Formats: sequence, structure tokens, C-alpha cells
Amino acid sequence: MQSFDMPAIYGARREKLRQSMARKNLDALLISNDKNRFYLSGFELHDPQFDESAGRLIITRDGKDWLATDSRYKEAAKKLWPEDRTLIYGGDVARDIAALLQKLGARIGIEARATSLYFGACLQNEGRGISLEPADGLVEELRRIKEPCEIAALEHSFLLNHKLMHWVENEIAAGHMGGSAEQDLSWQIEKFFRENGAQDLAFANIVATGRNAAQPHAVPGTDVISSGAPLLIDVGCRAMDYCSDQTRTFWIGEKPAPVFARTLALVREAQENAMKIMRPGVPCAKVYAQALEVFKNAGVEKAFNHGLGHGVGLQTHEEPSLSPRSTQALEAGMTVTVEPGLYFPDWGGVRWEYTVLVEENGVRIL
Amino acid sequence: MQSFDMPAIYGARREKLRQSMARKNLDALLISNDKNRFYLSGFELHDPQFDESAGRLIITRDGKDWLATDSRYKEAAKKLWPEDRTLIYGGDVARDIAALLQKLGARIGIEARATSLYFGACLQNEGRGISLEPADGLVEELRRIKEPCEIAALEHSFLLNHKLMHWVENEIAAGHMGGSAEQDLSWQIEKFFRENGAQDLAFANIVATGRNAAQPHAVPGTDVISSGAPLLIDVGCRAMDYCSDQTRTFWIGEKPAPVFARTLALVREAQENAMKIMRPGVPCAKVYAQALEVFKNAGVEKAFNHGLGHGVGLQTHEEPSLSPRSTQALEAGMTVTVEPGLYFPDWGGVRWEYTVLVEENGVRIL
Repeated sequence: MQSFDMPAIYGARREKLRQSMARKNLDALLISNDKNRFYLSGFELHDPQFDESAGRLIITRDGKDWLATDSRYKEAAKKLWPEDRTLIYGGDVARDIAALLQKLGARIGIEARATSLYFGACLQNEGRGISLEPADGLVEELRRIKEPCEIAALEHSFLLNHKLMHWVENEIAAGHMGGSAEQDLSWQIEKFFRENGAQDLAFANIVATGRNAAQPHAVPGTDVISSGAPLLIDVGCRAMDYCSDQTRTFWIGEKPAPVFARTLALVREAQENAMKIMRPGVPCAKVYAQALEVFKNAGVEKAFNHGLGHGVGLQTHEEPSLSPRSTQALEAGMTVTVEPGLYFPDWGGVRWEYTVLVEENGVRIL
Repeated sequence: MQSFDMPAIYGARREKLRQSMARKNLDALLISNDKNRFYLSGFELHDPQFDESAGRLIITRDGKDWLATDSRYKEAAKKLWPEDRTLIYGGDVARDIAALLQKLGARIGIEARATSLYFGACLQNEGRGISLEPADGLVEELRRIKEPCEIAALEHSFLLNHKLMHWVENEIAAGHMGGSAEQDLSWQIEKFFRENGAQDLAFANIVATGRNAAQPHAVPGTDVISSGAPLLIDVGCRAMDYCSDQTRTFWIGEKPAPVFARTLALVREAQENAMKIMRPGVPCAKVYAQALEVFKNAGVEKAFNHGLGHGVGLQTHEEPSLSPRSTQALEAGMTVTVEPGLYFPDWGGVRWEYTVLVEENGVRIL
């Protein structure tokens, strides 16, 4: 595997961000989203729980950026950030951060989607003289376009995901699946990922047998995987910090029911129809419409009740969205899922998902 | 295991909450915190990612409470909530929720700690005529005191945690630990939990050998567990939806180094000194001071750099906090960790943790 100079890469990302900040005339930008923090510094990919931050970055106009965290992370911070620009805050986090922000300028950008109303109010109370400006999406804009080091990590993560799907296919072919509950297979999948190098799951596994496959967000339960029914598997791992995401729908038993075969063929056709027009400049909403068209022609468009795809990277769901409401267009370097599905509460459903990298002349399946 | 009528229990919790709402003169309360949502309804314990809600509850003055979610969760909602009080929102979540809130009254409580600045602003823009009042902590206040069904679940979760620690102890005694990396043992621990009935880990495992044990928040890495050094293990599982949390520090090798034995004895003494005064009415800050006193007498108080404990329940970290800044007092039915620790960067550290249930006359170790 190629090696990358990550400290230099983090630094270059912060320089790009500084240009976006200058356009908004911000003196500093407080980064609270954990994935954005990691993307810009390599510091802690995950916050410990939703209402507990592992730390925040402060990107400054003059390039002397700060890392603010608590004493639990002191050693981890030392390993990748200069100590004289590390703030170890005490019990009153907002007060300590506001005091630092006051020294850095008056117009402070904050991530309004990643900052609670409570913390925002505390910062504002403590930070007399500073103006907090919602400045969402600046880092996400950079994160949409994957760099070579990210593509390498994504390839690694998706390779493992393919390996898992082959394993599942073989298990089905060998007849090992009948009699297992969804949740047992789900745990087998998780174990496979972890014992083959994944750090974690990218998201909670979906393993849905029979009618459960009609729920796009089925939670694996005690229902037994049985013959003569579909089995939908939507799983992803996190490897080299990056998420993968794949869905396959199998038929368990001898010969697929005609309605299943027909539905699967339509789903694959919709996927192909969408993928063939994907290249830089094509509006995301048009890619969605291209898949929908196949379903419309077959009169089943009402059975397709979600978006066609989403970006994948440090998070499973990120920009861009292949939805009818999207106003973005594809760009080279984006990685997006293409996952049409058709759902019928009386017997189940079919979804099939590839993740593709947008290149100059089309897409490459990861 | 005793069985509980959960729908009735969820309903009773909502009635209690309605009393707190009345004291604040709220027409409705929008619940956004996923654990609070689950506590009040049984709907989805986890949001899919930090910036993506699985749904929100709206607790109303008149008792006709609403569940608001998106189409992915329609089937899951049907199983536990009346359809005529389920709002399936579309792409503009804030608009759809604000429209419903407008029908329910003017003074709407929101959880400011669990609502982003962005979503709060969207709600306010869309909800002309409604006043959003920060109303944090009303559900957390109920959650501090565990009900019999919760104590049963916690006992179950802690039993599994004890079983895990016995397994680790036996592995150490059998000499199976030498040569494993921290991250390998961490995965063995996770597998043990999951294959013995846990749904998940309660939090990321801490497995720290040697000097790494000096970091209260060590991430398991490639360092090899070796003889003549401490091994600190701080792990918990989630079982029956409830978290457990235990820390033990072992000595690997023949005879513990004198400094380790001395430190361990002090930590256990501090723990005992704290636990012996714990009963309803005792201030949390006093419990902390009681542990600190042992360290002060030994002149090592500077090596104790975190709080003494925290509540455990649906979340690993919840109220109350056994910290010097706490203004709360213990009450019967609280479950709190008691986890003093001493850390020395030159050789490592020791932490020992019990979780106790506060009862009328003292505490019972879970």
C-alpha cells in the first residue's frame, strides 16, 4: 500500500479551508463535528457519545490553529499537535473556549449542525464581543472530493466488503443459511469484518428475510432465514478509517419466485441506467430520475421510496445525495452509492448497491 | 427473569414527565435525545448517526403524544405507536414538525443539549407563533432513579461484565495474555460479550498495558501485553438495552512491583472509604472528597485527575456525577460508578471500578 504524509495532508486541507473562511471573512472557525475534526487533524475519529466531545479544532486566519480538548486526551493530543497551541479545558468548556476565541478575533464561524443550542448559548454568554456566524458545510465541501489517500482507504474498505459478500454467497450456496436467525447471521458478518481487518462496522447491519426485506431500515431480529424467500443484506465496514456500504438481495432456495426475478432484473436495470450517465457535470437529481424512469416504465415507481444514493467516506452518509431534491452536480473524485430498491410489503423487496468513484469519463465501481 | 409491562411503564413515565411540563407551563415538549425517546416510548434506542435522527417524540399537555419519524421507520413505529398520532415527515423535517407543534400550543419545550443550532433555527423559522423554551433535564431527572425493570436489566448487564472479568482473570492466570497486542485482547473481550448475549459494547474498550495505563482514555493499540507491567481493562457491555461499566487493573507476571501493590491498595482504600458513606441524602461532592482524602493523606492526590464516578443506565455516562463540582445528593435508586484511579506517566496506573445501586441504608454492588 502506498504511504502518505498525513501531517502534510492535514495541513494542506486546513490551508484550503482557510481560503473558504477568507471568502466569508471569518477570523476563526470552531470545528465541532468529529469527522471534520479528524479530517483536518487526525485527532480522534469518534466522540465518546453524542453529547460528549473529544475535542474541538479552532482554525484561525493566521494559520496558528488550535486543538482544544480535556485532560483525558492530553497524551493523544501531544502526539499530533504542538503543545503551545493545545488548550486543555476544565469543567467549564464553553468559558475556556470562548476566552480563547476572544483573542482570535470577532467573527467566529461555528458549525450550526454540529453544535447544540445549549453549547451555542453558553459560548455566546461567555464570549462577549464575539459574533458567532453559522458556517456549515465548509469542511464537507472539501470532503466531497476524495483525495488519493482517501481513495486508497476506500478501496481497501470496499475490498473487504466484497470479500464478505463472497463469503455470504458461498454460505448460501452451501446451504448453511437455512435455520439461522437474522441476528445470528448479522453477528457472523460482523465477526467476519472484524477478523479480516475492519476497525468496526460502518453502520448497523441490515439482514432481512422475507417480508422484512420490504423495510428499507430492517433491524436483524429472531426471524429465521428460510427457503423460498428473499434475503436482503445491507452492510458496511470501517477500515483504514473509511466506510464501505454494499447491499445485495439473494433468493434462498432452489428457483427464485418469478416476482423476485422480475423485481431483481428491474432493480439492476435501473442501477445500470443511472450509472451509464454518471460523469462530472451531471446533476445528481438527473441520476436519480434516470433510475426512476426504469421503474416508471414498469409501473412500479411507487415501490421505490428512498433516494438513489449518497456519498460515502469518513461517514456512511455524506454529500452528495442522489435525490430528486439535490441541487448539486457530480464532480470527479466523488464516491457515491447507487442503490435502487423496490419494496412490496406482501412478500419483501430487492435492493442492490454499488459504490462508484466518479472519474473524468464515467464511473468506476469500488 | 421477571417480566414487565413495558407499554404501561412507558406511559407512566410520560405521565410523570407531563407533571414536570405543567410546572414549566409547557404546551408540548419535543424530545430529540435518542435515549430519552427510547425511555419514554421504546422506539429506537439509537439514532443512525449524530446528525441523523431516527425520530422525535412530542409529549403534549393533553396526553395525546406524537411520534414523528421518516418513512424508513414506518413499520417499526406501527408496532408501538398509534398510527393516527404518528407523523411521517418528508424531506423538510423542521417544516413538518413545526406545523404539528403549531397545532399543539404556543410554549414548546425543546432539549437544547440534543438539538442543533441549525435545527433549532429551522424550527423557529417555520413555526411562526410558537416559542421554543429550553427545557433540558426533565427526562434525565426521571432517568436518574432506576425503576425495578431497569435494575433487572442492569443486573443482567453487570452479571455479564463480571463473567467477562473472570474470563480475563483466568486467561491471565493461565499465562495466555503474554504476547497479545492490546487490540487483540480488546477484540477477544468484545467477542466474549457478544457471544454471551450482549447487544453491543457500552463504550469503546480501554485495554492499556504498561505506561499506557497512565492515560485514563487509552485506545487499544499494537503494544504487546508484557510481563512485569500493569494491565488496565475498562470495559462494559450493553445487554437488555442497559450499559455496564467495570475497570480492573491486573499485574502481569510473577510478583507485582511494590509501587503497583502500594498504588492498588490506596485505590481500593479510597473506593472503600467513599462507598462506606454512600446513602440517600449524602452530597455527591462529599463522596468524591471522601475518596480524595485517602489520596491526600498519602500525598498522591495530584495523580487522581478525574471524577470519582457517574450514573450508568441507558447511557454509559449519565447523572449523577460524583465530582467536586456536583450540587446533587444521592437518592435511593441511583446507580453510580465508584472508580478512583492513580496515574503515573513513568510506569502506568491503577483504576478499580464498581457500580453500585443506592439503597435506603447504603449501597449494593451490582
